[in-house]
Amino acid sequence: MRGQVETEQKAAERLYAIAERWYGQLSEGQIPSIALPTRTKQNIEYDEGSGVWKYGDRESVRSAQTAKGAVHLLKMAYVVGFLKQQLAENRSSTLREMYYISEGWKQAKFAAQDESNRLVEDLEILTDIQREVYHLRPEEDGASLFGPIRVREQTRRGMREIHCQDDVGETGYQIPNNVDALEFVDHDANFVIALETGGMYARLIENGFDEEYGAALVHLKGQPARSTRRLLKRIHEEFKLPVIVFTDGDPWSYRIYASVAYGSIKAAHMSELLATPQAQFVGVQPSDIRDYDLPADHLSDQDVAALKAELTDPRFASDYWREQIGLQLEMGLKAEQQAFASQGLDFVTREYLPARLSEMGVL
Amino acid sequence: MRGQVETEQKAAERLYAIAERWYGQLSEGQIPSIALPTRTKQNIEYDEGSGVWKYGDRESVRSAQTAKGAVHLLKMAYVVGFLKQQLAENRSSTLREMYYISEGWKQAKFAAQDESNRLVEDLEILTDIQREVYHLRPEEDGASLFGPIRVREQTRRGMREIHCQDDVGETGYQIPNNVDALEFVDHDANFVIALETGGMYARLIENGFDEEYGAALVHLKGQPARSTRRLLKRIHEEFKLPVIVFTDGDPWSYRIYASVAYGSIKAAHMSELLATPQAQFVGVQPSDIRDYDLPADHLSDQDVAALKAELTDPRFASDYWREQIGLQLEMGLKAEQQAFASQGLDFVTREYLPARLSEMGVL
Repeated sequence: MRGQVETEQKAAERLYAIAERWYGQLSEGQIPSIALPTRTKQNIEYDEGSGVWKYGDRESVRSAQTAKGAVHLLKMAYVVGFLKQQLAENRSSTLREMYYISEGWKQAKFAAQDESNRLVEDLEILTDIQREVYHLRPEEDGASLFGPIRVREQTRRGMREIHCQDDVGETGYQIPNNVDALEFVDHDANFVIALETGGMYARLIENGFDEEYGAALVHLKGQPARSTRRLLKRIHEEFKLPVIVFTDGDPWSYRIYASVAYGSIKAAHMSELLATPQAQFVGVQPSDIRDYDLPADHLSDQDVAALKAELTDPRFASDYWREQIGLQLEMGLKAEQQAFASQGLDFVTREYLPARLSEMGVL
Repeated sequence: MRGQVETEQKAAERLYAIAERWYGQLSEGQIPSIALPTRTKQNIEYDEGSGVWKYGDRESVRSAQTAKGAVHLLKMAYVVGFLKQQLAENRSSTLREMYYISEGWKQAKFAAQDESNRLVEDLEILTDIQREVYHLRPEEDGASLFGPIRVREQTRRGMREIHCQDDVGETGYQIPNNVDALEFVDHDANFVIALETGGMYARLIENGFDEEYGAALVHLKGQPARSTRRLLKRIHEEFKLPVIVFTDGDPWSYRIYASVAYGSIKAAHMSELLATPQAQFVGVQPSDIRDYDLPADHLSDQDVAALKAELTDPRFASDYWREQIGLQLEMGLKAEQQAFASQGLDFVTREYLPARLSEMGVL
């Protein structure tokens, strides 16, 4: 794909620009350095325009003035060289492999993978290019997609065109790590529904929810990987489809919704690529636990603390969330999405989802 | 598939047989009961003939003589009824959904999912039928397969024929939960290599190891799910292909190999269906850490204890394992499979695996 070639060209140029900057500093008799936004919770700002979280104006400078700073820049230079080579040779590697490769970099060897992961994130910020473009992939799995969507995937073995209902097994199409190697060809869907658990994903497939309602089902596998969030964002933008998120009814699951909709602190520099602010939360709502008398567990102390933290989190600063979280703290209960099975295996697809989606204006 | 229909028929009959037995006991004025092998470590025996682990002769009896026993049989009766209905209606559910469904069973409601899972295992033993045949699935993911193998999957949306290199994206074919809904059509493979980590799976795909050596790659995703072990067993038997296991070099990973090759205590009643005693361990061997000077971590106290436990585990009672585990305890080191990346991204496929597989007689 031409777009990919151009993006990689740009990526290589921006990597060179980092080295050029150091070269320039040195020729002018300056000490080499880099400046990066401070990556802490205090420097995360909600961007009203795009509805996502981004880094603020605070900056940290790393300079070769100290031995520690010099070693840091040396490590960055090695990584820049490694990524440049990966791009030139069309190779790829996991973040873990890159950490092991640094074994051969002597003084620039990383002490732990946290450090090399973080340096890659720094390079993403400096170059404004995602690590996927540099052919770096995490260990984590991509999620799965089942529904009336046709994709074209550029693989190392050639182009594959796959219809995510007709050409796949019962577990669906497994999303590759670099979603930007995908082309979304066409679709016959009315909306996308992203599901926290594999049990609910399989339930909706078995009950034919995708066919009956024209739903594209995405299995989030818990806290979604970057590739999964990127996929949701691209489907939403390119096919103009509503994105619905269906999770368990507890504070950790609301964070899953928030990371789909608003982005995470860790990847705030990628929020515009990863977050879908228009994504809507369908449930499990605390009011559902009450209204449908769902089997529930008592909130633990950690649950209560997490709910209280959400009450002061600007991502949840709406009447809706204040009311729901308030209700949950009052009831002291949480429920899983599979708890709807207590009313029969069809209840969730015949009763609950149609009712909620109508209420939300999706159906 | 006819085979599947017959198996389900048999499953239904064996469920009835449990109820019939109770009916017979009651009509003869006896107190209803069931007898099951005791499911503890003390009652696990190595079966020399099949090379797998099975339950021994010790039995426990559950009888309605006590209130507790009566409630247990009541729960079993409800589950038998639920599974019979699932088979009749061609429905399926997760183990978690079944636990929630028991909410409606009043006195027979399960206290926790552990209890319902265990009861399903008991039914597997009583009927000698796997839970997959009853359309019960776990939450866990199936693993992935990439290689020159063509499968036919019976899905709810019809039959799908999929070549696991040509018809799939770069992440491969995702194995369904019930591997017995698969038909292994044909292949062009020389052996199967099962890989612990996603990083190594992707590495072998990227390096074209499957094409160069006719290897079918299976991603185990850590401790393999039952479906993954069943897949390896079936490919081994039906295609007569050697099965190779490639994991990290630590005691927990050796257990992954052991569960593929010899079965696990938890599923000892299914060992003959799940275990592949001919499966061979390729590495990471403790001697590889030494010979290839791999980046390594120090063994933790738990690692040392686990290695020592393996020295007394009959599954590891061979000269090979005694020597390797002894060496590892002496060195005090462990290494990950991705540690080979320290010698370059191609080292594992160009040097290490060809050398080891020749040594083992696979190449």
